[in-house]
Amino acid sequence: MSARPKGRRPGDSGTREAILDAARELFAEVGYDRASMRAVAARAGVDPALIHHYFGTKDRLLASALQLPVDPEVLLAGVADHPERAGAEIVRRGLMLWDGNPEARDRMVGLMRAALSHDQAAAAMRDLLAGSVLATLELVVRDETAPLRAGLIGTQLGGLMLGRYVLRIPAVAGASAESLVAAVGPAIQHYVTGAIVPADVDQPA
Amino acid sequence: MSARPKGRRPGDSGTREAILDAARELFAEVGYDRASMRAVAARAGVDPALIHHYFGTKDRLLASALQLPVDPEVLLAGVADHPERAGAEIVRRGLMLWDGNPEARDRMVGLMRAALSHDQAAAAMRDLLAGSVLATLELVVRDETAPLRAGLIGTQLGGLMLGRYVLRIPAVAGASAESLVAAVGPAIQHYVTGAIVPADVDQPA
Repeated sequence: MSARPKGRRPGDSGTREAILDAARELFAEVGYDRASMRAVAARAGVDPALIHHYFGTKDRLLASALQLPVDPEVLLAGVADHPERAGAEIVRRGLMLWDGNPEARDRMVGLMRAALSHDQAAAAMRDLLAGSVLATLELVVRDETAPLRAGLIGTQLGGLMLGRYVLRIPAVAGASAESLVAAVGPAIQHYVTGAIVPADVDQPA
Repeated sequence: MSARPKGRRPGDSGTREAILDAARELFAEVGYDRASMRAVAARAGVDPALIHHYFGTKDRLLASALQLPVDPEVLLAGVADHPERAGAEIVRRGLMLWDGNPEARDRMVGLMRAALSHDQAAAAMRDLLAGSVLATLELVVRDETAPLRAGLIGTQLGGLMLGRYVLRIPAVAGASAESLVAAVGPAIQHYVTGAIVPADVDQPA
């Protein structure tokens, strides 16, 4: 405990956060499967027994580490008050968060990386993306199309994050935030207020 | 060479394909960094020296393994002839390929997983996604907005693949292909023919 690196604060919540930070870094660097509890403890500068004390199993540590870096309901607060501009507003706030906060962006990318290699991480990300967007969207759309609308907004936001920060597609990575708001906003707006058929209805081709 | 598993055909192209199949499987299962040349050789049932013979370095093996499972120009042939339905048509063909061909889908997902953990894979995927969509799109749009349009189509298609096959967001994974064509088509159509500001122009907020 005395060899805690990076000047982290002592005390219960400081130790817990140090473990979570170390876990997120290691999950992002080497993947969930290769990040041992021992390595997480070493990076956090704590005794491995403390990880068991705070989190129990590695799966529970993963679940705790996969929390979103920002509360989606705070991020999207008020968006539902102006449904006709919701598309642009959702894109603007997402880009403000990611462009302005490299740490938040890296955590989202780490979450996505974990989701691609680990079913439990995929489940966590599914719940976060769809559930949080869904909660905001249900303030606008209250019919049976809401889950598909929220899911499709999640796919476009996730894809935009991938394209801008991970794949770095030149035209997407190099665009100003406002030109992306103008370009992507109408697509998201379609998912918010456009004509959408409920997902469970089979349409003839 | 005599212990070749899975009944693969002998001869030069059979051996090369066996190595590529083994590499793709291992990259998908354990990631690029952990997939040793020796393990690839063992899975392919060939001598490790043959991998060096065909591909030289591990990086060149990765580049070869990351080829798209289908030629995008074949997949999108004729789409540009009807620009007004291009959005729905692009979504329909993508879903036909992925829904109907689990192997092609797994290779795309493996490519995405590699892209999230390895810069060279990200570069390969960036070129494939943006470049191939761009080639088709430039048959429709010939101005300076084409790269941003193509990039945004790539983000929505990539996000849709993630949401439907990896995260398995219930409303997105459970939707019929035709209801997704109806729902996502207009968003892609916006990127093909809608009002898009060139990416490099900074807009005041």
